[in-house]
Amino acid sequence: MEDKARIQEAIKIQGEVVRKLKSEKASKDQIDEEVAKLLELKAQLGDDGKHQFVLKTAKGTRDYNPKQMAIREKVFNTIIRCFKRHGAETIDTPVFELKETLTGKYGEDSKLIYDLKDQGGELLSLRYDLTVPFARHLAMNKITNIKRYHIAKVYRRDNPAMTRGRYREFYQCDFDIAGQYDAMIPDAECLKIVHEILSELDLGDFCIKVNDRRILDGMFAVCGVPDDMFRTICSTVDKLDKMAWEDVKKEMVNEKGLSEEAADQIGEYVSMKGGMDLAELLLQDQKMSQSKQACAGLSDIKLLFHYLQLFQVTDKVVFDLSLARGLDYYTGIIYEAVLTQAGVAPVPTETPQGAPAEESVSVGSVAGGGRYDGLVGMFDPKGRKVPCVGVSIGIERVFSIMEQKAEASAEKVRTTEVQVMVASAQKNLLEERLKLVTELWNAGIKAEVMYKKNPKLLSQLQHCEESGIPLVAILGEQELKDGVVKLRVVSTREEFDICRAGLLAEIRRRTSEA
Amino acid sequence: MEDKARIQEAIKIQGEVVRKLKSEKASKDQIDEEVAKLLELKAQLGDDGKHQFVLKTAKGTRDYNPKQMAIREKVFNTIIRCFKRHGAETIDTPVFELKETLTGKYGEDSKLIYDLKDQGGELLSLRYDLTVPFARHLAMNKITNIKRYHIAKVYRRDNPAMTRGRYREFYQCDFDIAGQYDAMIPDAECLKIVHEILSELDLGDFCIKVNDRRILDGMFAVCGVPDDMFRTICSTVDKLDKMAWEDVKKEMVNEKGLSEEAADQIGEYVSMKGGMDLAELLLQDQKMSQSKQACAGLSDIKLLFHYLQLFQVTDKVVFDLSLARGLDYYTGIIYEAVLTQAGVAPVPTETPQGAPAEESVSVGSVAGGGRYDGLVGMFDPKGRKVPCVGVSIGIERVFSIMEQKAEASAEKVRTTEVQVMVASAQKNLLEERLKLVTELWNAGIKAEVMYKKNPKLLSQLQHCEESGIPLVAILGEQELKDGVVKLRVVSTREEFDICRAGLLAEIRRRTSEA
Repeated sequence: MEDKARIQEAIKIQGEVVRKLKSEKASKDQIDEEVAKLLELKAQLGDDGKHQFVLKTAKGTRDYNPKQMAIREKVFNTIIRCFKRHGAETIDTPVFELKETLTGKYGEDSKLIYDLKDQGGELLSLRYDLTVPFARHLAMNKITNIKRYHIAKVYRRDNPAMTRGRYREFYQCDFDIAGQYDAMIPDAECLKIVHEILSELDLGDFCIKVNDRRILDGMFAVCGVPDDMFRTICSTVDKLDKMAWEDVKKEMVNEKGLSEEAADQIGEYVSMKGGMDLAELLLQDQKMSQSKQACAGLSDIKLLFHYLQLFQVTDKVVFDLSLARGLDYYTGIIYEAVLTQAGVAPVPTETPQGAPAEESVSVGSVAGGGRYDGLVGMFDPKGRKVPCVGVSIGIERVFSIMEQKAEASAEKVRTTEVQVMVASAQKNLLEERLKLVTELWNAGIKAEVMYKKNPKLLSQLQHCEESGIPLVAILGEQELKDGVVKLRVVSTREEFDICRAGLLAEIRRRTSEA
Repeated sequence: MEDKARIQEAIKIQGEVVRKLKSEKASKDQIDEEVAKLLELKAQLGDDGKHQFVLKTAKGTRDYNPKQMAIREKVFNTIIRCFKRHGAETIDTPVFELKETLTGKYGEDSKLIYDLKDQGGELLSLRYDLTVPFARHLAMNKITNIKRYHIAKVYRRDNPAMTRGRYREFYQCDFDIAGQYDAMIPDAECLKIVHEILSELDLGDFCIKVNDRRILDGMFAVCGVPDDMFRTICSTVDKLDKMAWEDVKKEMVNEKGLSEEAADQIGEYVSMKGGMDLAELLLQDQKMSQSKQACAGLSDIKLLFHYLQLFQVTDKVVFDLSLARGLDYYTGIIYEAVLTQAGVAPVPTETPQGAPAEESVSVGSVAGGGRYDGLVGMFDPKGRKVPCVGVSIGIERVFSIMEQKAEASAEKVRTTEVQVMVASAQKNLLEERLKLVTELWNAGIKAEVMYKKNPKLLSQLQHCEESGIPLVAILGEQELKDGVVKLRVVSTREEFDICRAGLLAEIRRRTSEA
């Protein structure tokens, strides 16, 4: 009992905290976090009452309501249409993998992996991305070439309160080309796809930054960075999209112990942006040209731009030496698409971890990817490599931009596709309504009827207004006698008597117009 | 080291077991199970080598390859089209819920729930079905009426080896109507939907059995079953679709201790099948009419059949008193659709547990559902009820039937929708191919090009044959000079010279025909 009193006291205090935050109009995340603590305390009181449990979704997750789903469907359709236009197949993999499949693939982010409880049997973890399961699938089935997309949810035990707008369960939307092909052709197609998708989604102006892991490594080498510091210096360079060069340099020199001279040399290179011409210039660069690796990367950048010209997408692509994506498994070209238009609310993306997660890359980043020629070999018993290049669309970010746009727009988001409401003006016409709606359904027309014996005409019309149904087929004694249906156009309130035999054609005509 | 030797010995023996099973042509499941044991032993040897890990998906799960995905997409499209025709919205919920959300909803099947590891924070479990998260969503958002569908994966730690064709990760495909409406109208629409979907999927003849939880309970009461034995006797009745009445009776009398007299009376009722007439007959039945509950159920069955007549689906619906679905939460009408055509390979569905899982209901069962008016109230802090009725399509069973059909059919399942392959007959035409494929993509045509500088014409044509691409646009020096493209029809091997300006129109004409 004393224990209980203690918890009740804690609940009281926590209640005050929540009230205070609310009165101060604190951020939703902050309030949510404190409410969660409150609910946890309440849950500790045990099941005294029947309904003492916490009514919420798990931390960092959310339900999608019909409006969100309608937006999500539209976005997915646009993206899938593009993937299919480029001849991609699709696969699916289980939501959990053997724990060891994920082990050693994510560096220090491994601590964000969700493990399943050991209930006897295998040790399992929820997938952290779609790339590792893809590589496992290729190795397991000895697939040496495939062009596939995969849209599915992945799981990361990140701290959702610290990283607003990010969830512990979120979608990834990946397109990858696996196979031994001539250099830069599939790589260029990935960029073409990013270009097409971002254009079609109409998110405003964007820019696709391109670099190469080999150019970065070569640059580090010729600037005098010790070999074993490449990765850590690389992840500092990766912060250039959110930090000024001065601060990046400070981190390199003060925190990571790089010489100031080396840092300054890096600083010169990473300020460079351009196109094919810049790649050519750097191939002539006295220092850079000393690195074989860098030269290989620069030649490929030249080739890439050649193909991008043929694909008509060079208007948006920039060779940017400051791009340094975090993931360890990239071996060649890397890229990232960023929204550049003002008016797009930036999402803060500081992570508690050093290396940012793939979809948190930078303010405004909406797609990213690169070449990873070694990952499949990690799974193959004989280490056989399957070269891969891929791109991941930052779909959650796209959703939230589309949701913001929908909020701002006067147009209502429809959550159903119903074309006709079958209604009646008088009582006792349920049977007639059911007969008519059956006719419509059987003819493939999307139709609804109210589940009431005698609904009011007004409430039937209101439902149409609310859910955007364009037509109402109204039945009354007179209409039935005359063998007609009164068809009402919701937007204009016009009404026409249509003979029953011509109704289907009339509905089709009017709804295909819209 | 001794320990290691012991494991290596065990691996040797287990290897023999696997070889023996293979030579005896044992079932794939049996072999898979023993191979899994072998791999687990091998894994125990630890990471001596770099590639010592087990290359497999978690037990009871599988990847879907592109062919399976193509079939899955087709099935989903048919089902979603039907749901949308009936005006349904869709929602999504997280793959895991707070553990307590699932607690107390599944009876003894609760032991099949996957728990997540306690990594600090909330205790979580993978969803077991879509109905409980739906009810949680309604209560949490105080939604009192909605018509929604939800297609997503659910998780059950069942023994996949004992229940062939069943997986630990599988899709559910649910449609539910929540809200306070006039009796039997939404219930009838659920059956109309099952009728439409099964007809459109073209799975062969089917039958939809209907009963009511209140009729079952009333029947048990008037037959003299003690109140506290209703549930257990009900789950024995549920076995009538796979067991003879004699065996069911034996279980009631010998195992469950019911009097023989009561069992015989039940036996008489559960052999009854019919339509509205049977409901009327039973309303007059001397014994049955003594139960208020049974009478309420029988009146509703009558009303249901009245609406089903208007919906034109009575041809497939049977009022069957032996139908007794396992789930506890049903409160009214229950139903189940069964494939009746010979030639559909039955899937064995014995489960180690007493109550069969929802989608394992019976041989040939492809859909099931019912009314559950109490579930949402279990989540509402004030116990406010939201009446619900719904149906779940046994989509995994549908997939496997469609896969069997695809295997048996001469027609190849296409895994992409590519309309045109852009090919060249001569060398050094990569640039021209990339230019042309860009034109096609930009015009919204699904097109592919090989990622080689100089692919052989034969290998380009072979790729078309293999993946069912209907057209090839062939470029050569002569064609470029003449301003034409040679368009080849893969199926007939005909070739036409098409002027470049007319190419898009010609491709559209030829692919819309198909």
